[in-house]
Amino acid sequence: MGFGLNSFLINLGMRSGADQVSVDAITLFVVLLCTCIIIGHLLEKNIWINESTTALTIGLCTGIVLLLTTEGKNSHILVFNEELFFIYLLPPIIFNAGFQVKKKQFFRNFVAITLFGVVGTLISFFIISLGSAQLFKKLNVGFEMGDYFALGAIFSATDSVCTLQVLNQDETPLLYSVVFGEGVVNDATSVVLFNALQRFDLSHITSGIATRFAGSLFNLFFTSTLLGVAVGLLSAYIIKKLYFGRHSTDREVGLMILMAYLSYMMAELFSLSGILTVFFCGIVMSHYTWHNVTENSRVTTKHAFATMSFISEIFIFLYVGMDALDIEKWRSVSKSPGTSVGVSAALLGLVVLGRAAFVFPLSFISNLTRKSPVDKIDFKQQVTIWWAGLMRGAVSMALAYNKFASSGHTQMRGNAIMITSTISIVLFSTVVFGLLTKPLIRILLPQQKPLSSVTESEMSSPKSLTLPLLQNGQDPEVTMNGQNGTIRSSSLRMLLTIPTHRVHYYWRKFDNAYMRPVFGGRGFVQYIPGSPRETVVS
Amino acid sequence: MGFGLNSFLINLGMRSGADQVSVDAITLFVVLLCTCIIIGHLLEKNIWINESTTALTIGLCTGIVLLLTTEGKNSHILVFNEELFFIYLLPPIIFNAGFQVKKKQFFRNFVAITLFGVVGTLISFFIISLGSAQLFKKLNVGFEMGDYFALGAIFSATDSVCTLQVLNQDETPLLYSVVFGEGVVNDATSVVLFNALQRFDLSHITSGIATRFAGSLFNLFFTSTLLGVAVGLLSAYIIKKLYFGRHSTDREVGLMILMAYLSYMMAELFSLSGILTVFFCGIVMSHYTWHNVTENSRVTTKHAFATMSFISEIFIFLYVGMDALDIEKWRSVSKSPGTSVGVSAALLGLVVLGRAAFVFPLSFISNLTRKSPVDKIDFKQQVTIWWAGLMRGAVSMALAYNKFASSGHTQMRGNAIMITSTISIVLFSTVVFGLLTKPLIRILLPQQKPLSSVTESEMSSPKSLTLPLLQNGQDPEVTMNGQNGTIRSSSLRMLLTIPTHRVHYYWRKFDNAYMRPVFGGRGFVQYIPGSPRETVVS
Repeated sequence: MGFGLNSFLINLGMRSGADQVSVDAITLFVVLLCTCIIIGHLLEKNIWINESTTALTIGLCTGIVLLLTTEGKNSHILVFNEELFFIYLLPPIIFNAGFQVKKKQFFRNFVAITLFGVVGTLISFFIISLGSAQLFKKLNVGFEMGDYFALGAIFSATDSVCTLQVLNQDETPLLYSVVFGEGVVNDATSVVLFNALQRFDLSHITSGIATRFAGSLFNLFFTSTLLGVAVGLLSAYIIKKLYFGRHSTDREVGLMILMAYLSYMMAELFSLSGILTVFFCGIVMSHYTWHNVTENSRVTTKHAFATMSFISEIFIFLYVGMDALDIEKWRSVSKSPGTSVGVSAALLGLVVLGRAAFVFPLSFISNLTRKSPVDKIDFKQQVTIWWAGLMRGAVSMALAYNKFASSGHTQMRGNAIMITSTISIVLFSTVVFGLLTKPLIRILLPQQKPLSSVTESEMSSPKSLTLPLLQNGQDPEVTMNGQNGTIRSSSLRMLLTIPTHRVHYYWRKFDNAYMRPVFGGRGFVQYIPGSPRETVVS
Repeated sequence: MGFGLNSFLINLGMRSGADQVSVDAITLFVVLLCTCIIIGHLLEKNIWINESTTALTIGLCTGIVLLLTTEGKNSHILVFNEELFFIYLLPPIIFNAGFQVKKKQFFRNFVAITLFGVVGTLISFFIISLGSAQLFKKLNVGFEMGDYFALGAIFSATDSVCTLQVLNQDETPLLYSVVFGEGVVNDATSVVLFNALQRFDLSHITSGIATRFAGSLFNLFFTSTLLGVAVGLLSAYIIKKLYFGRHSTDREVGLMILMAYLSYMMAELFSLSGILTVFFCGIVMSHYTWHNVTENSRVTTKHAFATMSFISEIFIFLYVGMDALDIEKWRSVSKSPGTSVGVSAALLGLVVLGRAAFVFPLSFISNLTRKSPVDKIDFKQQVTIWWAGLMRGAVSMALAYNKFASSGHTQMRGNAIMITSTISIVLFSTVVFGLLTKPLIRILLPQQKPLSSVTESEMSSPKSLTLPLLQNGQDPEVTMNGQNGTIRSSSLRMLLTIPTHRVHYYWRKFDNAYMRPVFGGRGFVQYIPGSPRETVVS
């Protein structure tokens, strides 16, 4: 497209008023993404560095170079906003989380995850809100109680990506699923809280408002989950009915991607929590839809979703690093550097305190409900869970921008301080806490052997593709014949001796009797000789 | 993200001046895409309908519904522009074309493809330009010679997607590769021509200007190809060096996607032809890079690229269908409907004529260079090639918008007529010609058996994944030991008896001796026991 596509684009941008994303900016960004992947791979065995820190550092360095070349005018190359984050970057990350999660482990720890994710986030939210209201009263930035509540929601959103890169799903399954599940539920809770706060007037809290607030929160959680499950089941049903006997890998993969995204967008459209919806849609898709498609589609979706999530994550950290140096935001703070540092330190202290205030008590409560010692969360694991949620990341940034920069008013002193404090906390926690994570976990959790009781039954998730070999062997539940609902006695005995598995047993029975015959799933899609017939669509 | 993400987004949009893509628009579009995929699958065996026509029709129907619900104000839901098309939708389609092409067949027909794609497009360009200049002289729309040349370039861009959906790569390999190759080279030629015309002042053509014009065209073709090859080789080298002994499917897939896109963006940055660059990058990646990655990465990239291309195509046709009803464009034409219909008919006639004027003569020339009768293009095939290039599609639309609507001046009579004529021609040719394609090809080309001489050696492209089984069997060239350059005598004899294969033989020798040892490729990546070790990155 010779002779100046740049001017071509500028013309177009002027014509339609759309974003003037320039070719050189995209090119630079793609080069940076490639660099992050390569460096991340090379440093994989390094004890200090992880992928997030690499991306953040490269983003910071690029920001500095840009700042120098543009003579202090500009440090970021793409005019991004929270829309990009919430509409395009977050959905693939959360969907992939649901798609790849080990479902049995996740649901076994469902109580602990909900405790940490919902109750814990609320505790942290109150501590940060009330603490900051007490500490910043004399700063005279003109904040009302609603602003402090917003601060609480912003800094309750954890970013456990760093920790999850270090934890191993096979070595420490309990820890992994709790940290991971808490991360997802926490994302949803804090965003829902934040949006609810924007709508409710919480300057005068009455018991009536509080009850309605709690009710609408619960309603949101429930309907969002339901929508995700519904869209996931719909995708399973469509693909099962439509592709019976005539498969087309490209169409299957396309439909799965589009319907996953659809679930998120529908949640947004109905003002629900897209994060929760797309997460549960991912779980349902991996349980039913994934088993209805061709072998090639399975491999493709598994890795394509993981890659999309992976690129989105690097993208976010790169951008956060680059955006941190935006000179305009720092200008109005530079007059009172002491205040800014003080505010950041105070908030960071509240974050650390707020997390400690719920991790240890809630772990104690959670341990009371568990009988088997292997399922209890010991003290070292509690410290790991506490540490895992100290990082603050892109969700906090996006919420802070929405609250304090929504009309470009970073000139206002209070807003400017909050934006720069958020950036400082995100940078500090990701880089400093992130650097310490790997060594810390190595000290707390010496290399553990896989717990055999847990790993054997995880074969039904997309994590593992060795399924056909195991189908008649290790996993007793697979050999069940679903239509008549009978179950082998060994499996039954196992289930009866472990009472916490009873819910799972009834679910399994229900699943095999009613769900799988309709929606497909492992072992319920008839094998057609000569199939998959690959139709090439291009 | 409860309680009104819509207002959230509108706030953000106002803040950053970015595009206000609303959630409901995206949701509707995703629903439409899903519908197109499902209906396309159901109608696959239908003799009249193809996927493009389905998408176009659904787009038109949605446009009508939107027009009725908004009381005639608006028929499209997303404010799209040519940037979206050239920066995001076109690259995956062209890259996938290069990635999935049967390379040997493509290069064997390289002369014919270049003849049709470059010389043919130029002939068509001159006939449409000069013809329209003659016909529209009395219309008094204030067009200069430059505008007529632009018209020539706009209507030289063919859209062979419909035809390729009908032709079968295994049944009619010669026809497929010529139609397919011509389509890609034609896209590049017409876009390069169009951009060159915008830059050169062609109102006074001198021999000096013509020579410089031809020189810059040649230069563009050469450097664009070179850049694509260079980026492709770089990706192969990086992945070969970096992942030796330690594979990571997600990183490999991510790097391949990003570097493919990088090649396109770099070409745009250097004012080259991104279409040619990304096409050759795809070819090189499928020849080298694709063989350096894990088995899972191969399956994933093959289907992920095909799916991306597939979704982009449907997206384009949906959008064109929806955009066709934009009321503003039709308003200023409605006063003189006769002129508009006349212009459209005249242009369509020129398109048909311009294509006939080069397909038959150039086929004759091409046949002179071929000795084997099986390689000659017979008359029925010539008619098929002629028909395959009669459709006009998204490239014509994008170029016409750029030329005639670049400042929102569809109010100007001449511009408005040209825009509406382009829409009419795209709709008419895609729907009417598209409907006739399947029956026509069934008449012209009765079901043929695969030509065994061609299909046996195509195993090195990502089309086929049965590679390991054949490695020591059917394809004699695979068993060549590249480092010492020796070649089995049976293969040598075969190559010597077919003189047209001589170039290919020397290339093969060079490839095995110098290229593959450095860049990897089939059989040149050492197998590491225990590898691929899947590192899960999330």
